[in-house]
Amino acid sequence: MNVDLLQKSLDGRWADVRTNVREQMSRFSPADPDLSREDYRARVLELTHELARTGQPHTGFSPDHGGKGDVGGVVTAFQVLGYGDLSLLVKAGVQWGLFGGAVQVLGTSRHHDKYLRRIMDGELLGCFAMTETGHGSDVQHLRTTATYDPATQEFVIDTPEPGARKDYIGNAARDGEMAVVFAQLVTGGQTHGVHAFLVPIRVDGQPAPGVEISDCGHKAGLNGVDNGRLVFSGVRVPREALLNRFADVAEDGTYSSSIENEGRRFFTMLGTLVRGRISVAGGAGSAAQKALTLAVRYGERRRQFADPGTGRETAILDYRAHQRKLLPLLATSYALAYAQDDLVAEMHRLQKPGADHDEKAQRELESRAAGLKAIGTWHATHTIQTCREACGGAGYLSENHLPTLKADTDVFTTFEGDNTVLLQLLAKNLLGDYGKSVAGLSTVGLARFVGEQALGDVTERTGLNRLRVRRLDPRSRAAQRALIAERSEHLLGGVARRLRPALKKGADQFGIFNAAQDHLLEAARAHVDTLVFDAFAAGIKRSAPEVRPLLEKVLDLHALSVIERSRAWYLEHGRLNAGESRAVTAAVNDLCAELRPHARLLVDAFGIPEPWLACPLLEDPAAETTVANPAPAMVG
Amino acid sequence: MNVDLLQKSLDGRWADVRTNVREQMSRFSPADPDLSREDYRARVLELTHELARTGQPHTGFSPDHGGKGDVGGVVTAFQVLGYGDLSLLVKAGVQWGLFGGAVQVLGTSRHHDKYLRRIMDGELLGCFAMTETGHGSDVQHLRTTATYDPATQEFVIDTPEPGARKDYIGNAARDGEMAVVFAQLVTGGQTHGVHAFLVPIRVDGQPAPGVEISDCGHKAGLNGVDNGRLVFSGVRVPREALLNRFADVAEDGTYSSSIENEGRRFFTMLGTLVRGRISVAGGAGSAAQKALTLAVRYGERRRQFADPGTGRETAILDYRAHQRKLLPLLATSYALAYAQDDLVAEMHRLQKPGADHDEKAQRELESRAAGLKAIGTWHATHTIQTCREACGGAGYLSENHLPTLKADTDVFTTFEGDNTVLLQLLAKNLLGDYGKSVAGLSTVGLARFVGEQALGDVTERTGLNRLRVRRLDPRSRAAQRALIAERSEHLLGGVARRLRPALKKGADQFGIFNAAQDHLLEAARAHVDTLVFDAFAAGIKRSAPEVRPLLEKVLDLHALSVIERSRAWYLEHGRLNAGESRAVTAAVNDLCAELRPHARLLVDAFGIPEPWLACPLLEDPAAETTVANPAPAMVG
Repeated sequence: MNVDLLQKSLDGRWADVRTNVREQMSRFSPADPDLSREDYRARVLELTHELARTGQPHTGFSPDHGGKGDVGGVVTAFQVLGYGDLSLLVKAGVQWGLFGGAVQVLGTSRHHDKYLRRIMDGELLGCFAMTETGHGSDVQHLRTTATYDPATQEFVIDTPEPGARKDYIGNAARDGEMAVVFAQLVTGGQTHGVHAFLVPIRVDGQPAPGVEISDCGHKAGLNGVDNGRLVFSGVRVPREALLNRFADVAEDGTYSSSIENEGRRFFTMLGTLVRGRISVAGGAGSAAQKALTLAVRYGERRRQFADPGTGRETAILDYRAHQRKLLPLLATSYALAYAQDDLVAEMHRLQKPGADHDEKAQRELESRAAGLKAIGTWHATHTIQTCREACGGAGYLSENHLPTLKADTDVFTTFEGDNTVLLQLLAKNLLGDYGKSVAGLSTVGLARFVGEQALGDVTERTGLNRLRVRRLDPRSRAAQRALIAERSEHLLGGVARRLRPALKKGADQFGIFNAAQDHLLEAARAHVDTLVFDAFAAGIKRSAPEVRPLLEKVLDLHALSVIERSRAWYLEHGRLNAGESRAVTAAVNDLCAELRPHARLLVDAFGIPEPWLACPLLEDPAAETTVANPAPAMVG
Repeated sequence: MNVDLLQKSLDGRWADVRTNVREQMSRFSPADPDLSREDYRARVLELTHELARTGQPHTGFSPDHGGKGDVGGVVTAFQVLGYGDLSLLVKAGVQWGLFGGAVQVLGTSRHHDKYLRRIMDGELLGCFAMTETGHGSDVQHLRTTATYDPATQEFVIDTPEPGARKDYIGNAARDGEMAVVFAQLVTGGQTHGVHAFLVPIRVDGQPAPGVEISDCGHKAGLNGVDNGRLVFSGVRVPREALLNRFADVAEDGTYSSSIENEGRRFFTMLGTLVRGRISVAGGAGSAAQKALTLAVRYGERRRQFADPGTGRETAILDYRAHQRKLLPLLATSYALAYAQDDLVAEMHRLQKPGADHDEKAQRELESRAAGLKAIGTWHATHTIQTCREACGGAGYLSENHLPTLKADTDVFTTFEGDNTVLLQLLAKNLLGDYGKSVAGLSTVGLARFVGEQALGDVTERTGLNRLRVRRLDPRSRAAQRALIAERSEHLLGGVARRLRPALKKGADQFGIFNAAQDHLLEAARAHVDTLVFDAFAAGIKRSAPEVRPLLEKVLDLHALSVIERSRAWYLEHGRLNAGESRAVTAAVNDLCAELRPHARLLVDAFGIPEPWLACPLLEDPAAETTVANPAPAMVG
């Protein structure tokens, strides 16, 4: 099997970008874990400037201002940085993705002409000041105000209460000169909701007048990024500081917007920022791949306990328990890689220069991004933890990369949208679609629909699905697809039924929603399972024929792990009987054994530059010898 | 409800010790996370000496040498230290538990008289040098040698190969003067297996001649502990350096031991060290309790998204998804606390001065310790991670303790016995018992036994247990007990059947074992589930009548979470039908809602000293206000 062909399949649509960044990355060697926080920040700032000099950050910006307009390319490049120093990844993400991205997509030419070039080159460093101490998930209700003063034609930025302090803001504590500040726009005594403003926060290295900056201090990881807090007291910025692509304030204070509805306007503004979530999902994927590469290579060389038959110590990856720890996660990492590539391609299609605005497709993209970000970052946290444990004490030493990977990625599950909140967002959007499809049915059709649902319930209550006669073949792609997709649809239908009473006047909306919240989250997860499955299957079809048989097996393992994880649900709903459920587990075991010989190839195909992997964990001589008096296999 | 009565119940048998240590602990304030590694090590060394001055470490040592012989007390005290700086906990554990403990239990009066006093007082700092780079789990096959030279009446300690280097050794990199070194004892050309030797490793702060010391460097956490590596080249120690409680070498090199069988001798020596595992389980429990206390208190005060009915923002702990994240873990933390107290009491009974040696009870204690250490440390890792995420960005800041808790405890799952290996050890011991009970049956009895097993299989294959007629009441304590215990017995019986062919001559022992490994691990986990359930139930019976009703609910939640987690198994084996399985999930939801109002009380009863909890996460003013234009509940 040719590792290059496999890597080509994984590298996907932006393979060239990946190759470039892999070559550049060798210059960005890992940081010494003993660096002080200040020194680490200084180092990451230096690397950020170095990255700017490669021209890579230009890729994503508009060609009108010296960029390449390659939206997909820049997100893919970001993803490859995820094999390296994640502080650099996040600092770069703040500077070019969040700060620069907001100026690009929320601003207009007056901002672009003035700032984009300097932002791309890293001359003007900035922050994305959205989150407040009191409002992280519910950004629609953040409290910072930007009040228009027609007398001076300025906005006055204020932090009206302690909870309105901007918090966790990257680039704020040390390096940022400017911030895109999200605030409630007030003019003529009226509030028009959250808008973004360009606010200078530092002048000659000192906080700008009226801006109070403090440091978030030491964090679990990412200590090369200077997260800080911003408090504003009567900070005046010109009227033109408003990023006015979607709304503007005239000199006399008159407010105008191309989007009438305040909520819709808010979500349209937020939607343009979807790139951040997609990038985080990509970075998480890279980190998980790196952890798996380390753990698989260690698992192949590390031997412990002698086989009583041969007296030879067994490579730990030959133990079933070890395979079950690592190989399903490896399979899912493959699946997520294809899903991520699809997501990036769709984002590129919608957001590349000159693309028509397609609101429906954009909304769909946001849903997918929310779902994949949640599932992908949880997968990364779980995978890196598992890999750390799979490497024992060696996995706890910083020299072996896993501690840093773990600490740096931990925040991915809660920043750029808390995962739980993102899954709810996805479910909400899905329910919107679902509601529409139900609403489109005639009365008869609706009655039949409800009838079918009721039948489904009865089937479940019997504990057996009597409609299904054929016995499950766990390796049948169609059967896997049907099981995964059916679960998603059923969960969604069920939650729609449970939420319907909330539409009644006077209903306890919160109570009804809250009682179904776990169901709602499951429905969202199941939806992501389906789209990840489909993306992997489609990716295999695009791959070279030589690598397809192996990839099919990897997809089998991924799909059956997903089904196995939810097999209680399939049993409860009569989709699997007891024997079939156990056959799924047996198939997962078999697939682990079948893929074991290919494990090294599968991780090599991630194409992680060797200098970034090198560590004593991989270098130490295997301590293998033949044992004269082997322990009984039982404790093996 | 009185928090003191609840705390009294949790504090258990060594409540007085806990009170003392809680009072002392206020002096051991948390470390600055920005401390350099060297400064942090110096600080922890200082705290170690301060701890010695409290006299607390004396508690566990023999009264003959100035100790109090309170074995249970010292382990409980250690547990309370787990609320504080975990580097101090581990440094103290290495010094007094592992190093001092080995001298106490593996040595004889010649060692006790010479060293114990100085060890207790922290004047003589030492290491426990067991693990080698090449052998961590399989310590029976470690490679360091101690070769007796009758000419000089010395043992010569050698590291014969790179893999035999002692690794991850606490106290080695900086502070330790002496080490208990585990090595293969060779005399007269014959190897007698692993024995422990007292070896000076540092003289006047410099490595002793022939000893090469290196530093493990920066770690994921516990950077206040100086873990290092030791390589020995012809290091000579007197014959008396052998810790000779179980075996000795005469002047002429003749080897003798009170335990003939080498394997049994090895496991007897290891068994005396069970205290380390019990202590780790206790420390992990404290860390999980601390994380839960932070997350529950934050969840009560943190509000996000407005209830559309009231316009008031909802406390995040009022969301079902948030309750489901935290409250089952809180319930399990209660269950584990009672199981831990039982385990400590049993250890105390067996190991207190003057106790008769009861080999069977000792073996049983080791099994329980292995199981509880594995389950308890995994619970801690999972709980702390969940609590970190439940606190969002605030949970990622070091000032809020969660990052340190997470990083410091991460290694608990793989040190003092890798959890997977420990569960296998437990399963092996259980199978030994199981084999004995089967072997004791007459031929007729055996046939009936096999017949019953076969019947069980048939029952499972039908997917329905036709023998059971009554419908499950999820809140029935007897039903919960039956489900949990039955699963454990069934899994164990199944794995015994699968392993039986390995006893045949010429069988592929490794292959048979390996194919059943995941089954074996499940059986071990299920066994621990049973004993934890029983311990909690018994603990409630010992509690004040006023607190029992609340504790019963907590046990309900714990038990049903355990059953829910394994409900696929119950469905596959016909122990639950679909409706009953869903009733279990519904009951977990209901119990979360019922316990929600008591969540704060439940965490307060852990009695964690307030100065150790204090952090901005708990102090910030709640950013609650009434929202004029609430978001729809759906995104809540």
